[in-house]
Amino acid sequence: MEREKKSGNDVHGLVIVHTGDGKGKTTAALGLALRAWGDGLRVLVLQFIKSGGDYGERKGFAALTAADGRMEMRSCGRGFTMRGHVPPEEHRRAAKEALADARAAIVSGRYDLIVLDEINYAVKFGLLRVEDVIDLLKARPAALHLVLTGRDAAPEIIARADLVTEMRLVKHPYQAGIKAQRGIEF
Amino acid sequence: MEREKKSGNDVHGLVIVHTGDGKGKTTAALGLALRAWGDGLRVLVLQFIKSGGDYGERKGFAALTAADGRMEMRSCGRGFTMRGHVPPEEHRRAAKEALADARAAIVSGRYDLIVLDEINYAVKFGLLRVEDVIDLLKARPAALHLVLTGRDAAPEIIARADLVTEMRLVKHPYQAGIKAQRGIEF
Repeated sequence: MEREKKSGNDVHGLVIVHTGDGKGKTTAALGLALRAWGDGLRVLVLQFIKSGGDYGERKGFAALTAADGRMEMRSCGRGFTMRGHVPPEEHRRAAKEALADARAAIVSGRYDLIVLDEINYAVKFGLLRVEDVIDLLKARPAALHLVLTGRDAAPEIIARADLVTEMRLVKHPYQAGIKAQRGIEF
Repeated sequence: MEREKKSGNDVHGLVIVHTGDGKGKTTAALGLALRAWGDGLRVLVLQFIKSGGDYGERKGFAALTAADGRMEMRSCGRGFTMRGHVPPEEHRRAAKEALADARAAIVSGRYDLIVLDEINYAVKFGLLRVEDVIDLLKARPAALHLVLTGRDAAPEIIARADLVTEMRLVKHPYQAGIKAQRGIEF
């Protein structure tokens, strides 16, 4: 079935960007991954900033992987740069490794959809150069869908994207003094 | 574990709205559902407009349901009102039934998160009254998270929400003449 789709005339890999200051950038990418997986595509979610931990998202994905190995999730980051006490060079090294990992996955032909989670943030915070990301886009096979998430997506990346959505914060519970809710916000 | 969370002091059910003209409103709700499920919450996705079919999202959810029954998805609609030839009164009847179903689920205590997918669209197109939706919000137990998706969310609903994100279309592949991609956009 996958082969059928890949040989069809209509398969045009999309470069999708989720950016903006609102919630839902990563979450919508996870939803896309779920839908694509359900439709028979081979999916990789590669997290540039996040360092793993037992987030609900990881557990949810593990269930999909267990059901059918077409779903993979890898966390290659060291956490957000504004939190914790990880030296900047460690963040940069992790980002470079994730970049190499992403490139290998992109050219491997093993996936139909790859999510590069928080890669825009990695560029914004100087962990990666925008040229590194453009090179990834250029290396992409024509049928591969790529999703790039993170706030402040570089204009060069937006210029090369097919589908760009800005998640805009309209109202946030922090504003009303409500703490972040487990299972929902983290 | 669920009970632990529910008895904690920090559980404050959020009313979350995903609106706007961009992609990702339903998709982010599905991602939220996946994350919440992975975190041990009991989840229901109730689709007001969609009529089922074998979307990838349904197959993905079916895998989660099979892994652990805490995930349910129900499609109660008759499809988008602008497509097909379903008489308006049938759309309205389906929406009323979905509303009753939603109310029963909300007051049942059986769920920690309920997604009311496309309910904003149902209001916008006159299938439901905004007062019907406000009544649902009022009936909600304090610890229950509700996600309401669909473009053109009514101001009365936004006023009662804790977290509102507008998904704004920045760039769409239709603009470049690229057809919708299976597994990604539908």
